[in-house]
Amino acid sequence: MSCIASLPLQSLLVPHPKKFKMAQNGSDAKRPKLADELAMFDEVFPMLMNDLEKHGVRDPETSGAVAWFKRAALYNVPHGKKNRGISVVQTYRHLVEDPTEENLKIARVLGWGVEFLQAYFLVADDIMDQSITRRGQPCWYKQEDVSLTAINDSFFLESTIYQMLKKYIREQPYYVNVLELFLEVNYQTVTGQCLDMTTALPEGNVDFTQFTMERYSAIVKWKTAFYSFYLPVALAMHMAGISDDDSHSRAKNILLQMGHFFQVQDDYLDCYGKPEVIGKIGTDIEDNKCGWLIVKALEIASKEQIEILKANYARKDELCVQKVKAVYKELDLEGVYRKYEDDSYRDLIKLINETSGNLPKDIFIDFAKKIFKREK
Amino acid sequence: MSCIASLPLQSLLVPHPKKFKMAQNGSDAKRPKLADELAMFDEVFPMLMNDLEKHGVRDPETSGAVAWFKRAALYNVPHGKKNRGISVVQTYRHLVEDPTEENLKIARVLGWGVEFLQAYFLVADDIMDQSITRRGQPCWYKQEDVSLTAINDSFFLESTIYQMLKKYIREQPYYVNVLELFLEVNYQTVTGQCLDMTTALPEGNVDFTQFTMERYSAIVKWKTAFYSFYLPVALAMHMAGISDDDSHSRAKNILLQMGHFFQVQDDYLDCYGKPEVIGKIGTDIEDNKCGWLIVKALEIASKEQIEILKANYARKDELCVQKVKAVYKELDLEGVYRKYEDDSYRDLIKLINETSGNLPKDIFIDFAKKIFKREK
Repeated sequence: MSCIASLPLQSLLVPHPKKFKMAQNGSDAKRPKLADELAMFDEVFPMLMNDLEKHGVRDPETSGAVAWFKRAALYNVPHGKKNRGISVVQTYRHLVEDPTEENLKIARVLGWGVEFLQAYFLVADDIMDQSITRRGQPCWYKQEDVSLTAINDSFFLESTIYQMLKKYIREQPYYVNVLELFLEVNYQTVTGQCLDMTTALPEGNVDFTQFTMERYSAIVKWKTAFYSFYLPVALAMHMAGISDDDSHSRAKNILLQMGHFFQVQDDYLDCYGKPEVIGKIGTDIEDNKCGWLIVKALEIASKEQIEILKANYARKDELCVQKVKAVYKELDLEGVYRKYEDDSYRDLIKLINETSGNLPKDIFIDFAKKIFKREK
Repeated sequence: MSCIASLPLQSLLVPHPKKFKMAQNGSDAKRPKLADELAMFDEVFPMLMNDLEKHGVRDPETSGAVAWFKRAALYNVPHGKKNRGISVVQTYRHLVEDPTEENLKIARVLGWGVEFLQAYFLVADDIMDQSITRRGQPCWYKQEDVSLTAINDSFFLESTIYQMLKKYIREQPYYVNVLELFLEVNYQTVTGQCLDMTTALPEGNVDFTQFTMERYSAIVKWKTAFYSFYLPVALAMHMAGISDDDSHSRAKNILLQMGHFFQVQDDYLDCYGKPEVIGKIGTDIEDNKCGWLIVKALEIASKEQIEILKANYARKDELCVQKVKAVYKELDLEGVYRKYEDDSYRDLIKLINETSGNLPKDIFIDFAKKIFKREK
């Protein structure tokens, strides 16, 4: 993917008039480096844990539950890449010139809201998928004294979002918009999870009729793209006073397309990424995942090749995996992906240039940069 | 409990000045009978299912998920007693003279919101407790094609509440209050569930040091009383424009005490209720439940009796259950309960008379009547 990383991204962009009072390109110099932004973001988390502890002080009879929830939050929330959370802060900086420390703090709290939403889904996903590890540690429900209590803990993680919103933005004019946004995105993600779970079949049962590009796109959009891509940007937009339908629908359109590409890339890396770089050994083939590679393969494979895929997909057997990969090689799926990557990139830049409207393109470009450069 | 049912409830109440524009006692005649109220309440449910289906029309790619969710909602939501949901409507009638059809419809929608909240918790509870049946049918997660997908379905049931609120009360001045109330009560219930789950030990492990009346009260208050008693009344209060802290804290105080009694009664019926009347065979003793009877027994039993309880509680063995019941008999727990029931009833009426403030006492009396008369 180095071919993509080296593309002169900014050169493809034409300047665009700005109606909102937004940060100018000149303020780029003032923008902190990612590592510093991340450090400032991390500093907010202990404050949120403190808020939680106050519940136990206010209602001492609940202190046992509060101690339990604190353990659940510390285990599940702060150990991810935090890309989604940070994106709220970064987008806000693009939208507002010289943001106050107070508003940056709020942006970080909203960013942690996204991280809590993610943790809530992951804790539940792991139980439903019966996963073993997550982010390099055993899944929460795999802790001996946790088990299915983890379901209630996922409810708690979700609930924390609204406790945070009430405490930190209740007096802000965008409070209801942000409340509704989190609740709507929750519904969308739950819908996506349902589409995903009703597509996947138990181990050993392969039903390729479900594995269409249309279905794949729908799952990605609803299960991942809304909360991972649209949500962080939309939160920052509301904070900056941009709540009109037109701006949000423009942002959504671009970000859902970006989210789609992100997931395709994720699926590609699962098979072709270096384990030492991506930090895990991909298991999509064994796990009967409706991923981009198998869906694309089914589109272009011959009858004979499809038979081989059918006989070997979704089997926890290294030999079967190799046979699937051999068909992928015959089909030159790597090449097909490279072509798709180039095309998507160009399409995305075109989309940004043509449809951003009054929104600063840097919001989207920054996001795109993170993704198209990544190897993990 | 017929002794309670025959008490002249109204005679214990003194009249109280009313500041709010509220329904007068004279309008009692206009109030529909419970069966009619229930029929009108039930009529609203298909409308809510219709709303759900519109999602599938608006976003056809999600129609598979929408069909699944419809099945989950039909299976889990409308088959309870609906006491909680109906209470919103009944309380609203006490608070507002000549309510409009439009507002009654909103009260019913909010009532269904409470029923969806309940269904969301029950679906998850059944998985966590590994229950087999619920409301006379197999638990949702026990359906062959459902299993752990039920976790996501519980998220969906919760999510539906906020879809309903957005559609039916977004333009009302009490929208944010109602949103916050549902979210707060959710957090409270999740806290109670956590207290409950971290108190109960796996089968065969009895730790009576956890079974204190203090702990019992905390679990009941947080896990049940907020959502079952305070929530329905508070919703109607917000609808009627009563959102001040004083009124809500008065109502909460009374309703939490009522909720506590309700749960004690539930625990009593589990052991002493007639199975053909309560519709199930109680299993609290076998299931190691931290119920009122065992907690009370531990308070008054001798060392020897406690040893017998310890040796026989939490065992799925009819002989052990009988030994526990024999100790209960020695302690005359039935008599202790009867005395408690009488005392609670008097305390509750006193509390209502002394602390209702401007709220019509009938709200609470109606609720109390339902409970103190019940044998199931």
